[in-house]
Amino acid sequence: MTKTSKITLVGAGPGGTDLISLRGLKALAKADVVLYDALVDEELLQYCPQAVHKIFVGKRASNHAYRQTEINQMLVDFALSHGHVVRLKGGDPFVFGRGFEEIDFAKKFDIPTEVVPGISSAIGVPGLLGIPITNRGTTESFWVITGTTTKGEISHDVYSAAKTSATVVILMGVRKLSEIVAIYKAEGKDDLPIAIIQNGAMPNEKIVLGDIRSIEKKAEELYIGSPAVIVVGNVVALHEAYQEKINNNELVHV
Amino acid sequence: MTKTSKITLVGAGPGGTDLISLRGLKALAKADVVLYDALVDEELLQYCPQAVHKIFVGKRASNHAYRQTEINQMLVDFALSHGHVVRLKGGDPFVFGRGFEEIDFAKKFDIPTEVVPGISSAIGVPGLLGIPITNRGTTESFWVITGTTTKGEISHDVYSAAKTSATVVILMGVRKLSEIVAIYKAEGKDDLPIAIIQNGAMPNEKIVLGDIRSIEKKAEELYIGSPAVIVVGNVVALHEAYQEKINNNELVHV
Repeated sequence: MTKTSKITLVGAGPGGTDLISLRGLKALAKADVVLYDALVDEELLQYCPQAVHKIFVGKRASNHAYRQTEINQMLVDFALSHGHVVRLKGGDPFVFGRGFEEIDFAKKFDIPTEVVPGISSAIGVPGLLGIPITNRGTTESFWVITGTTTKGEISHDVYSAAKTSATVVILMGVRKLSEIVAIYKAEGKDDLPIAIIQNGAMPNEKIVLGDIRSIEKKAEELYIGSPAVIVVGNVVALHEAYQEKINNNELVHV
Repeated sequence: MTKTSKITLVGAGPGGTDLISLRGLKALAKADVVLYDALVDEELLQYCPQAVHKIFVGKRASNHAYRQTEINQMLVDFALSHGHVVRLKGGDPFVFGRGFEEIDFAKKFDIPTEVVPGISSAIGVPGLLGIPITNRGTTESFWVITGTTTKGEISHDVYSAAKTSATVVILMGVRKLSEIVAIYKAEGKDDLPIAIIQNGAMPNEKIVLGDIRSIEKKAEELYIGSPAVIVVGNVVALHEAYQEKINNNELVHV
């Protein structure tokens, strides 16, 4: 029996098992092999046929991560040997997910590829909490930036973004919080609202709200860490708790 | 019998009936009333119980649109009279969808609200075509901007965006294409790749690829109109057809 080789890049959306699209679920149901990341809820794998090979290729604190070149090669090898490979990624596969590199590599082997987009954490995580990434009269745009570039640095785009009135979302940036705060302070934006949401859409979600002046201290007190979505801009003040001016130390959801 | 009032704001994702999330489908299945927009595929309504009131509140060429204040009031009235109202919007409800205004109004009546994010067309439409909104080594950010502000003008943020190396996505901007092109030309970016995708993810999808210099003429020749997603930046050149340098007039998918 020869199975048809194919690679489907699927965005699982932010945490939770029901924020994946129906098309993503259908792909899982027809998978022969699934390669999945750390940000993917493992319960999603229940939608795969039971005999499917499910391979974790993500990074976790104590685990050695596969290199990107190894993942690219695994995708191709499994497609050639087993048929339909689903590459399941958290959020959307093209939002800092290195998804393009994977399908681009597969094309060199003439393996057909398909992309199933996902709900990006940049939009979905604040949205689930009632923070709208855009709002008429508040902002006309949003700018999503990586906090960790190829060189491990914060993107220089944050400097430009801090000068604008765009809602700014920084992914993979929580370890660069001091730098982010300094960039905004240099623009005189000490009062600008900011939210940090760790483990967005997951049962262990934590949120901290504040302004540029106060956020660093609050994030430290609450032990906010990765993975987290940082949202900077006046839309953050539309969060219910912000509007009610509740004491910020009470804003942690665990 | 008293039904519990509730309003659920659901993002349907870009075109197609299977790019909605599983959570969105569950909300539809439990709806008593659905209010939906022009950008929503009506086939999605099949997931509602048959007796559900399905009310079209979108804008279409010849139809009079409801005002936003009318929609806000309808949501509240139906929640109070019928129970669970699902407000179904194309893409993500917080990406230029005026979703926040709707849940904010509902809160004044103490009606519980829930948000189910959707796949934004800004990310999903190019993604489905193999154009990654970010790519390592190409761009470290993407900036999504409205082409039609409250005043009906293009957002001033496009001027700032054209100065950066961010992937720029402009929604509701196809009628402002001349202005967009002029803004980029003023920055000397005549060679920057640009894609316009009309009716993204729908059977009548059309795509035109080019650069700042050529795009206006091509879009005219191909009668590109609304609704459309405009993507500007070097990631557009990663599209397969762009890479193969096919004659651009052959790039229309109908």
